[in-house]
Amino acid sequence: MHGREYTRVVPGSLEEYLSPLRALVFDAYGTLFDVHSVVALCEQLWPGKGAALSTLWRAKQLEYTWQRSLMRRYEDFARITEASLSYACLALGLPVDEERRRSLMGAYLRLSLFPEVRDALATLKVSKLDLAILSNGSPAMLRPLVAAAGLGDQIRTIISVDARKIYKPAPAVYRLAVQRLRVPKPTIGFVSSNCWDACGAKSFGFRTFWINRTGAPVDELGAAPDHVIKGLDELAELLRRS
Amino acid sequence: MHGREYTRVVPGSLEEYLSPLRALVFDAYGTLFDVHSVVALCEQLWPGKGAALSTLWRAKQLEYTWQRSLMRRYEDFARITEASLSYACLALGLPVDEERRRSLMGAYLRLSLFPEVRDALATLKVSKLDLAILSNGSPAMLRPLVAAAGLGDQIRTIISVDARKIYKPAPAVYRLAVQRLRVPKPTIGFVSSNCWDACGAKSFGFRTFWINRTGAPVDELGAAPDHVIKGLDELAELLRRS
Repeated sequence: MHGREYTRVVPGSLEEYLSPLRALVFDAYGTLFDVHSVVALCEQLWPGKGAALSTLWRAKQLEYTWQRSLMRRYEDFARITEASLSYACLALGLPVDEERRRSLMGAYLRLSLFPEVRDALATLKVSKLDLAILSNGSPAMLRPLVAAAGLGDQIRTIISVDARKIYKPAPAVYRLAVQRLRVPKPTIGFVSSNCWDACGAKSFGFRTFWINRTGAPVDELGAAPDHVIKGLDELAELLRRS
Repeated sequence: MHGREYTRVVPGSLEEYLSPLRALVFDAYGTLFDVHSVVALCEQLWPGKGAALSTLWRAKQLEYTWQRSLMRRYEDFARITEASLSYACLALGLPVDEERRRSLMGAYLRLSLFPEVRDALATLKVSKLDLAILSNGSPAMLRPLVAAAGLGDQIRTIISVDARKIYKPAPAVYRLAVQRLRVPKPTIGFVSSNCWDACGAKSFGFRTFWINRTGAPVDELGAAPDHVIKGLDELAELLRRS
């Protein structure tokens, strides 16, 4: 198990610890779905500026979710994604017209899965765990995304923060998963590649798996993820052995 | 007035609009106080890496304030500032020992004022406005900072978010200023160089002045600042003429 050096202290054996899991809840963007195609389209539309644009766009997108949540001025994720794109283009002096905006927003509805995700989900499904998505994305963004990837059979529960009008990492968001899945909080495993999201879920009371694909440090938020893994295949392997 | 092109629509004349102000509340870091000396010290300690370190440090510092506020895991700003420094050093592979950490944290207590600030505050003080600071900084960070800059006579009210255990831009933070200054909300002018902070204050109900020193776009948070100025001298000039 190549991730053992990252695994945090666990009471009893790993198998005992993992056995009571009844559901797995996944973050969507960056966890199951690779936003690389959006980055590539930025580069295609503004050659030489794609990386700077997509980095600033993503940073502002997240900032706006946190700031609007604290301000109590919720707007849905599609509107925040468009607003942060406008900001990033203005800040970098890149002209954006309706056509480019539409094509970038459209790319968000057809993201690829990370390479290991499809097989890993199939393995996890066999283990009879309930699989769900809990995402900042609005329902109108998530439904076509899951359909286009052909995940509809594996992941039947798609939960959007939109039902609570606040964004991650607010506890009310994670509570949505308990309410929708109708299983006790400690039997839910939460999986995200965003460390702060895994910390938020841990703080709420989920067992958490941080997919650290880039070798980043753990965020210092007072609630470190229970497990650090390098990809979804590693999670499937952990559970298969238990 | 070189900022006229930025000024937003005002009911009646600018003078009428500004006349009922009874207090001015300033953000501290980046607004009155220039964090450049911290940036310079980063560069001195890790030559060639200072800019990358101070950028990541500042970004994480703010992220942690928003994320912890949403998670309801408040920690004071000194601890968040240290935690984000540790994260940034780890992420960039820069070794940090106790001495370097102490010297960087110490630099936060002795920041310089922006060049126009001292004279502008003196002008504003003459106008009999109550002057206050409302900052994310903990009381133990703000008191020595204001004292070292010799602003104690001009700014007698120093308000820290620490009294509410939540960070900007939560409304509870801006409400602190109303409670401490004991003047009606619409008679308070709020001044920040962080656009999202000015938006948060506007959303709460203050008249807001965004100091846009870098020519950045306005943040799209549904509550744009009332005025955009280039420095504190411009605010003093607006009020002097009214």
